[in-house]
Amino acid sequence: MNSEREFSDVITGLAKKRGFFWGPSPEIYGGSAGFFDLGPLGKLLKNRLENAIRTSFVRANFWEVECPTVSPAAVWKASGHLDGFIDPVTKCTKCGQIFRADNLIEEQAPGTQIAGKSVEELTEIIAKQGIVCASCKSPLGAVDSYNLMMKTRLGLDQDAYLRPETATSTYLLFRRFLTFFRDKLPMSVFQIGKAYRNEISPRQGMLRLREFTQTESQIFILEEAEQNWPQFEDIKDEELPLLSYQIQEKGKTDLVRMKISDALKKGHFQKQAYAWCVYLAYSIFRNMGFSEDKMRLRQHLETEKAHYAQDAWDIEIHTDSFGWVECCGVHDRGNYDLTRHQEFSKEKLHVKVNKQPVVPNVLEIAFGIERPLFCLIDNSFQPQSEERDTDWLQFPPEVAPIQVAVFPLMGKPELREPAQEIFGAVMDAGIIAQFDVGGSIGKRYRRQDEVGTPFCVTIDYTTLEDGTVTVRDRDSMEQVRLHKEKLVEALKGLVYGNLSFESLK
Amino acid sequence: MNSEREFSDVITGLAKKRGFFWGPSPEIYGGSAGFFDLGPLGKLLKNRLENAIRTSFVRANFWEVECPTVSPAAVWKASGHLDGFIDPVTKCTKCGQIFRADNLIEEQAPGTQIAGKSVEELTEIIAKQGIVCASCKSPLGAVDSYNLMMKTRLGLDQDAYLRPETATSTYLLFRRFLTFFRDKLPMSVFQIGKAYRNEISPRQGMLRLREFTQTESQIFILEEAEQNWPQFEDIKDEELPLLSYQIQEKGKTDLVRMKISDALKKGHFQKQAYAWCVYLAYSIFRNMGFSEDKMRLRQHLETEKAHYAQDAWDIEIHTDSFGWVECCGVHDRGNYDLTRHQEFSKEKLHVKVNKQPVVPNVLEIAFGIERPLFCLIDNSFQPQSEERDTDWLQFPPEVAPIQVAVFPLMGKPELREPAQEIFGAVMDAGIIAQFDVGGSIGKRYRRQDEVGTPFCVTIDYTTLEDGTVTVRDRDSMEQVRLHKEKLVEALKGLVYGNLSFESLK
Repeated sequence: MNSEREFSDVITGLAKKRGFFWGPSPEIYGGSAGFFDLGPLGKLLKNRLENAIRTSFVRANFWEVECPTVSPAAVWKASGHLDGFIDPVTKCTKCGQIFRADNLIEEQAPGTQIAGKSVEELTEIIAKQGIVCASCKSPLGAVDSYNLMMKTRLGLDQDAYLRPETATSTYLLFRRFLTFFRDKLPMSVFQIGKAYRNEISPRQGMLRLREFTQTESQIFILEEAEQNWPQFEDIKDEELPLLSYQIQEKGKTDLVRMKISDALKKGHFQKQAYAWCVYLAYSIFRNMGFSEDKMRLRQHLETEKAHYAQDAWDIEIHTDSFGWVECCGVHDRGNYDLTRHQEFSKEKLHVKVNKQPVVPNVLEIAFGIERPLFCLIDNSFQPQSEERDTDWLQFPPEVAPIQVAVFPLMGKPELREPAQEIFGAVMDAGIIAQFDVGGSIGKRYRRQDEVGTPFCVTIDYTTLEDGTVTVRDRDSMEQVRLHKEKLVEALKGLVYGNLSFESLK
Repeated sequence: MNSEREFSDVITGLAKKRGFFWGPSPEIYGGSAGFFDLGPLGKLLKNRLENAIRTSFVRANFWEVECPTVSPAAVWKASGHLDGFIDPVTKCTKCGQIFRADNLIEEQAPGTQIAGKSVEELTEIIAKQGIVCASCKSPLGAVDSYNLMMKTRLGLDQDAYLRPETATSTYLLFRRFLTFFRDKLPMSVFQIGKAYRNEISPRQGMLRLREFTQTESQIFILEEAEQNWPQFEDIKDEELPLLSYQIQEKGKTDLVRMKISDALKKGHFQKQAYAWCVYLAYSIFRNMGFSEDKMRLRQHLETEKAHYAQDAWDIEIHTDSFGWVECCGVHDRGNYDLTRHQEFSKEKLHVKVNKQPVVPNVLEIAFGIERPLFCLIDNSFQPQSEERDTDWLQFPPEVAPIQVAVFPLMGKPELREPAQEIFGAVMDAGIIAQFDVGGSIGKRYRRQDEVGTPFCVTIDYTTLEDGTVTVRDRDSMEQVRLHKEKLVEALKGLVYGNLSFESLK
């Protein structure tokens, strides 16, 4: 492979061919940029990732909620999205093509200062710098504001928008949470659900979607608890790979592995509770199957931060397709959101501290699931070699779309029926299994390698004699015979990681 | 309770108070009819139901996919929704309120024939019958067609719609499925995801939503396989509670429990594969926790059936809130949908049989998740009594939002730490657990009864001495002491149903 760009094509091609994702969707009607379908394997993989996320949050005492994806305009006025969630766009006066004005200026006049410029100022820059249509080189029209939310209507005449993130819909439940949590702060909640952004011209396939699945968690917390967070004790000696804004400002990207307690002392994190959130996010990505050498934490530069953000770090994943990819943000949002919604809704979104009303702060973890899904396929890719005549996927067993494949040597009932029984027992143990009878065993092994199934179990005529089955390991391609009564426990150990294949031999 | 109506208010009130669902959402901005939030317990319950659905489909060899919820207009033109998915509406000429014309006519001139009437004909009926505004009694405007899909826009100018069901988005993947299933029919797939209907004036709370979660499965199948379906053998002797259209036409509702093979012989079902789908849907509802005496299968009358439907049966659940509630449809759709999309997309959506192109048929199971969720709360309700001073919920253990609650007798570390350990072990076993330290044990039992938790485990000072813990049964309110090393296996047996609490004593 010559370049990163080509590698991303390899991954996308493989993902389409093997049923991970297809698109742009709807393919048979020509496709709309920014929309994808998840095929059977992609959906299994996504379910595994969601499961890892859900389990991580629940164990950290977060409660899940689910809110509508469509909300009336009043909500988005209050949240700031109606006025602020906009891109500057310009239309070619000749061919009619539409562009993001800031992107065009960056491409044709690199180095021009555009951050924070109004649409009028951008129009002026385009005129002065002679920026033209990227397609037909004709002059461009005036820059306009383009809201990234998809608009719709409820009933005949109520304006509404598809949510661009889940967080706002969660904030609105604050008063309900107070009752549910019996008025005790902190309150930890999360939401996994669809969100929508009407990007003008989405590129980079699965990395920039118009419809995606967003995970966002919130801790509603008082200032003093942020500095004195009991769970901090459990994680203070853990190390994180940090890329602080100071190092970035020097134009460098050297990672520093640092104990969390030291990072706090050195001022990389301001608050114990925020540092704990960063670690939680990092551990969720580890639970999704990412290896630590593919992950880094990058601090936002001052110019990147939202005006209300007190601190912001991203998790980035290294891919062969696109280099470092931003996958998750951890934000200290202060009490900006609740204060806005309190003002606009006229409802009390505060608690009483020493009889005084206090609007709590919000610590937030936010990430889409499609990016890690793509990155995990990228990171799991193994090219064909002398030993294996096909490209294969080395998914970590815990999140592999299919964890165990069960094969009767042949389709005859005397083998098929005991194989079905074993298949059922494996599924009962909470392992995602596939039953396959088609083709030679060699062909079936290869098909499972191609989709990253870590273990295959074969039932043959020896099984009928002595009750043993063959377990085949994807990574080493080695096999062992195990008694079927020990099979399920062994597979649980293999899949959930406390048992090595080596130890079975 | 005097009436059904009042009972539904009790259920809704309880659900809001205890964190199952809240709405109409967004509550703090006044709410939009047809939108609800799922609180922490409602979301746990929904996850349990989705889990039961997913497991049932996977074991029946269905593969899950996930498609966009937003699709361009061309898709909905082809599917027939753009022209056909409409309600007739009329607006009051004075107060401006909007009504469904057919509902108004039915209310004010019962017995008027309105099925299949055009908007012009309905306008005429309104004039002739003197139908007026239900609110201010003024004359009504001309009847208009109102499309139930929510419209939006992609980019600046591409019309698109939020899907009103998931099925269409699944059909569009037909050619991809052929590759994935290696050109072998039948192909079984399903999808669980959001769908949207812009009802003019949604009523009945959680039963008629503008945004809901739809589950739809499809089997793409050839005619001859429908009559000769191998899995039919496994279920032919099972009994189903049938309400055929013949009995309904006699104005009766008597259920007949009948073996599936007999129902086929008597012509209630036309095809083996369709009958198998009806049984699968029925078993999914059983797996969601519904008891058989609350379920019936009702056949569609000729007048109810869509023109392409060859056969259609609904699953209905009996509730104290609303009587029998339609919860699921099983449809024999023939090859209507694929034929339409083949025509509109110009892509080949057929297979070759004896070298001739044949468009396969589709057998479909379709249901929303919010209705069974509401019905399950309704069916689980138990009023307070002499023994218990609070209304409680008797959820089946497999689907209870919280399956096991773990309490340290007091919050002190010497009890809290072993309790945390037990909590972790219970969660590791795939049981949804909650850790609670607040208030007396009696209060904590009551709180768990209120949300339907079947089992509570208490760690006390005796635990530190002899390693035993208390397990308390919700239904009998009885307690046993068990050694903590036997606890997890016992709880798995209790929750997943092969162990009775009685046998532990």
